[in-house]
Amino acid sequence: MASSTNTPLPRRLPPNVTPEAFQAFITRAQSIVGIENVTVVDPQNPLDDGTYMDNCKTHDMHAVYERDYFVASAVVAPRGVPEVQAIVKLANEFVVPVWPFSAGRNVGYGGTAPRVPGSVGIELGKNMNKILEVNVEGAYALVEPGVTYFSLYDHLVETGLREHLWIDVPDLGGGSIIGNAVERGMGYTPYGDHFMMHCGMEIVLPNGELVRTGMGALPEPGNNPSVAAHEQKPNKAWQLFNYGFGPYNDGIFTQSNLGIVVKMGIWLMPNPGGYQAYMITFPRDNDLSAIVDIIRPLRLQMVLQNVPTLRHILLDAAVHNPKSHYTDKNTPLTDAEIDEIAAKLNLGRWNFYGAVYGPEPIRNALLEVIKAAFLTVPGSKFYLPEDRTEERSVLHMRSDTLQGIPSLDELKWVDWLPNGGHLFFSPIAKISGADAALQYEVTKRRCREAGFDFIGTFVVGMRDMHHIVCIVFDREDPDQRRRARWLMRTMVKDCAAHGWGEYRTHLALMDQIANTYNFNDNALMKLNETIKNALDPNGIMAPGKNGVWPATYDKEKWVLSGDEEEWVPPGPETATNTKE
Amino acid sequence: MASSTNTPLPRRLPPNVTPEAFQAFITRAQSIVGIENVTVVDPQNPLDDGTYMDNCKTHDMHAVYERDYFVASAVVAPRGVPEVQAIVKLANEFVVPVWPFSAGRNVGYGGTAPRVPGSVGIELGKNMNKILEVNVEGAYALVEPGVTYFSLYDHLVETGLREHLWIDVPDLGGGSIIGNAVERGMGYTPYGDHFMMHCGMEIVLPNGELVRTGMGALPEPGNNPSVAAHEQKPNKAWQLFNYGFGPYNDGIFTQSNLGIVVKMGIWLMPNPGGYQAYMITFPRDNDLSAIVDIIRPLRLQMVLQNVPTLRHILLDAAVHNPKSHYTDKNTPLTDAEIDEIAAKLNLGRWNFYGAVYGPEPIRNALLEVIKAAFLTVPGSKFYLPEDRTEERSVLHMRSDTLQGIPSLDELKWVDWLPNGGHLFFSPIAKISGADAALQYEVTKRRCREAGFDFIGTFVVGMRDMHHIVCIVFDREDPDQRRRARWLMRTMVKDCAAHGWGEYRTHLALMDQIANTYNFNDNALMKLNETIKNALDPNGIMAPGKNGVWPATYDKEKWVLSGDEEEWVPPGPETATNTKE
Repeated sequence: MASSTNTPLPRRLPPNVTPEAFQAFITRAQSIVGIENVTVVDPQNPLDDGTYMDNCKTHDMHAVYERDYFVASAVVAPRGVPEVQAIVKLANEFVVPVWPFSAGRNVGYGGTAPRVPGSVGIELGKNMNKILEVNVEGAYALVEPGVTYFSLYDHLVETGLREHLWIDVPDLGGGSIIGNAVERGMGYTPYGDHFMMHCGMEIVLPNGELVRTGMGALPEPGNNPSVAAHEQKPNKAWQLFNYGFGPYNDGIFTQSNLGIVVKMGIWLMPNPGGYQAYMITFPRDNDLSAIVDIIRPLRLQMVLQNVPTLRHILLDAAVHNPKSHYTDKNTPLTDAEIDEIAAKLNLGRWNFYGAVYGPEPIRNALLEVIKAAFLTVPGSKFYLPEDRTEERSVLHMRSDTLQGIPSLDELKWVDWLPNGGHLFFSPIAKISGADAALQYEVTKRRCREAGFDFIGTFVVGMRDMHHIVCIVFDREDPDQRRRARWLMRTMVKDCAAHGWGEYRTHLALMDQIANTYNFNDNALMKLNETIKNALDPNGIMAPGKNGVWPATYDKEKWVLSGDEEEWVPPGPETATNTKE
Repeated sequence: MASSTNTPLPRRLPPNVTPEAFQAFITRAQSIVGIENVTVVDPQNPLDDGTYMDNCKTHDMHAVYERDYFVASAVVAPRGVPEVQAIVKLANEFVVPVWPFSAGRNVGYGGTAPRVPGSVGIELGKNMNKILEVNVEGAYALVEPGVTYFSLYDHLVETGLREHLWIDVPDLGGGSIIGNAVERGMGYTPYGDHFMMHCGMEIVLPNGELVRTGMGALPEPGNNPSVAAHEQKPNKAWQLFNYGFGPYNDGIFTQSNLGIVVKMGIWLMPNPGGYQAYMITFPRDNDLSAIVDIIRPLRLQMVLQNVPTLRHILLDAAVHNPKSHYTDKNTPLTDAEIDEIAAKLNLGRWNFYGAVYGPEPIRNALLEVIKAAFLTVPGSKFYLPEDRTEERSVLHMRSDTLQGIPSLDELKWVDWLPNGGHLFFSPIAKISGADAALQYEVTKRRCREAGFDFIGTFVVGMRDMHHIVCIVFDREDPDQRRRARWLMRTMVKDCAAHGWGEYRTHLALMDQIANTYNFNDNALMKLNETIKNALDPNGIMAPGKNGVWPATYDKEKWVLSGDEEEWVPPGPETATNTKE
């Protein structure tokens, strides 16, 4: 896969679709959604055009493969639920794979790019971006796919409702609330588990049918029978009680290719009556184990009320400045160099960002327990935002994030390297010092072997940590891309050998990771495939998503096994950047 | 359906199975699980034998139909996962419907009885009752289907672990932890949503295959490849992180007929460091609306940390004494008579049972807020358990339940009437005074029309209430059973007309209730049926459960439309017990 001139690249048509059939599909799609809402990828238009790269909804902006591998043939933006249904039915008629996305972020996991090159993107967010309801009494919102954290937050501020209701935001506020929840993303307030905090879905199935899950399946009185299904009044408990009656289906529509979520309820947090963010810095790299063992009981007891993070110094360093600000070297930083950066930034090797919620007496009581526990680590220091003299420190940024104020601050760490692209590698870790230390050691070693700095954070859930390793590479440098691929594939293998699995991944790794969840001869995948084939017999919806291929695809043919496997790192702890 | 001599009763063979084929099935089943673990229902053995009624695992102890309608042809008790798999495969071979149950409770919702008369019960709890792990660090347990609340609690006490870990229990402690969670039952501590607090399942699918969901699908290192799948070491994150990678499947195995859960993780609550139960009584029937409007914001803010209940006076009255203790009359009690009972018991018309958790300063702060809010209702009174002079008041009982100490106290209210049988009618209600008052008014009126007292409780979840109406009837009285059926069917209709749906139900109501969740021409049911037919092409697993029928059954033929619909109540507010 050395360059875009090699077969099988570029593929700009859906697989097994003739140019004539594709044109007929596009014409029909235009008649459904309007000409202005169909974008066809022009094979004559070079994809390395910068403007195209920045704006396009057809590929992965942070491409770790050649940028024209994971690329759509066209993007269609329906103007409402009936048009989503019509496009899905059209895809069945033409047997064209579609790849739905909401706001088009999913940064670090493939962006808007489809798993099968040549799929037709369905861009839900462009025209379907209404906040359908904000209910103060029930503390929830009902939203369309294009509603982002920014837009819901702005709406609450403008209407004065932020006095009553807070949202939960992930690191970047530009994403879709639906998109993030169905990918099972995390935020950082007590409502950080976005799937857990969703309530009720309206879904277009692969056959074009429309379902409402949970209580949404029960018609609300006063509906006019002649009103189209998607416009029927929501049941008053749809956003209040998730499970409804009978099988609880919502989970199978997350990280899945079984349907397109076109409406979703999300629970909002009542204003807790007070808030205080804080940071605790820890001076030594090997403090990790002790810190994590302190986190566990505090989180289980809900003394840590929210989803706090324990961040590696280089993540904070990268938010502040590019690598070139700190050093001229191009190889991974040594421990001494990292210590130097920490000292310069007045931060620890590990930095813990948390917050307490509630009236002042409650906050103070919690903070006392938190300080008493963490400050047993020698050299650790406690900071409130006002203790930081920088104009806008990471603590200031996190203080916004942890109260649900969306931002794009965290985008900055992607500029650690020139032309910075990035990938997330996200294994689940036990909240245990020994496990965290081992997982850190294994992943850090591989990052260095691949010639990259280790940049990462532990995101603390109820009983697990999402360990997010941030791989920054120069996306204009084929060798760095190759090494990033090697690194990902190698870490997946290493982690599986330790019993660690990833919670989410970039397109390129989906098959490999799905394959590590192979208990009892891949029984879970067989279950997923059986359901997939029953609901999507033509295999049109997001084939290959999270490793689930419909029977209409020859899975073996589609699994990536790129040349990145051939690259052998120069040797432990002696990695050099081959361009240096 | 007037008596057991009418067709199509009794049916003691699986449908479309000859006596010879059934005998062959039984012989094979005996060879799998051992003769001692197969019980065949002997058609010559009259089902009204008292001993049989009390011990039998083949029918509904609280039968609201003739007691030999919902009845199994045999019960098979596997001794381990491979035997569950073998029985399921055997059922496919003979096309015999099976009806799995765990400990065999499900009281008020059909007990162990199968939906299709003549199904073969699979009793999981008899031999598969091991606590596989209690993990203090991760605060979870991994259990088999036969582990009850009592057995897990006793284990924690005996091992000294109750110092560290609390369980959450429903009203009755005899039930299976797995059985309750997969039926989406509730308890009353902060961990009251049992499905939300489960983590990881091992499931036998309808084809006999074994899957582990979530992180359980990722093999733990150190497993011997020659070890059978079900004995493989659990992944260390299986009970820590629910979602794993790809579609999150657990929900479709709840209230469903898609698989048999043979292992499940359940999160346990770390000892909160302090605990205090309390009761607040409210004197007037029409205080309901004000109380519920006080509950909502307190629950949303987690000032009410757990799942509290607001109980109708007659529920508490029935826990203390049978109706005959209070009155000689056989008709529904009047308001004046109910007031008299409340006065006699020194309770309110509504009684709120809650608890606060945590160190004393936290508890006191919360209690202050709680008292200030509720005691604005004129005549309301606050009690701690020590304020009650009765030897064992309902507050004493709830004080145990709300700290996860299992009991059978609540069984007593079934004795409100002689030969008390009972049914639950369980609509979901918004936490809103107006909604709760209307739902109470609608259901109470129907109870009285049917000649029954209204007995019920509101169980407060995060943003909804499970309104549990307890219908007590004399199970030896065909007329009372008929009226109970009329009452259930009528309340389902009434509630659907208001947009209210039930979260769970007795076998007899499954089709009717499923049918109320009929948005967009029953789109959700079609989805459920498509998945059902894909996973269970022979339709052997619990056909008809929660209204989901496999294609191999003629659904129309199986839906119950009994003569109970013909009974017309004598008139609003003038109902009399026809036996009086």
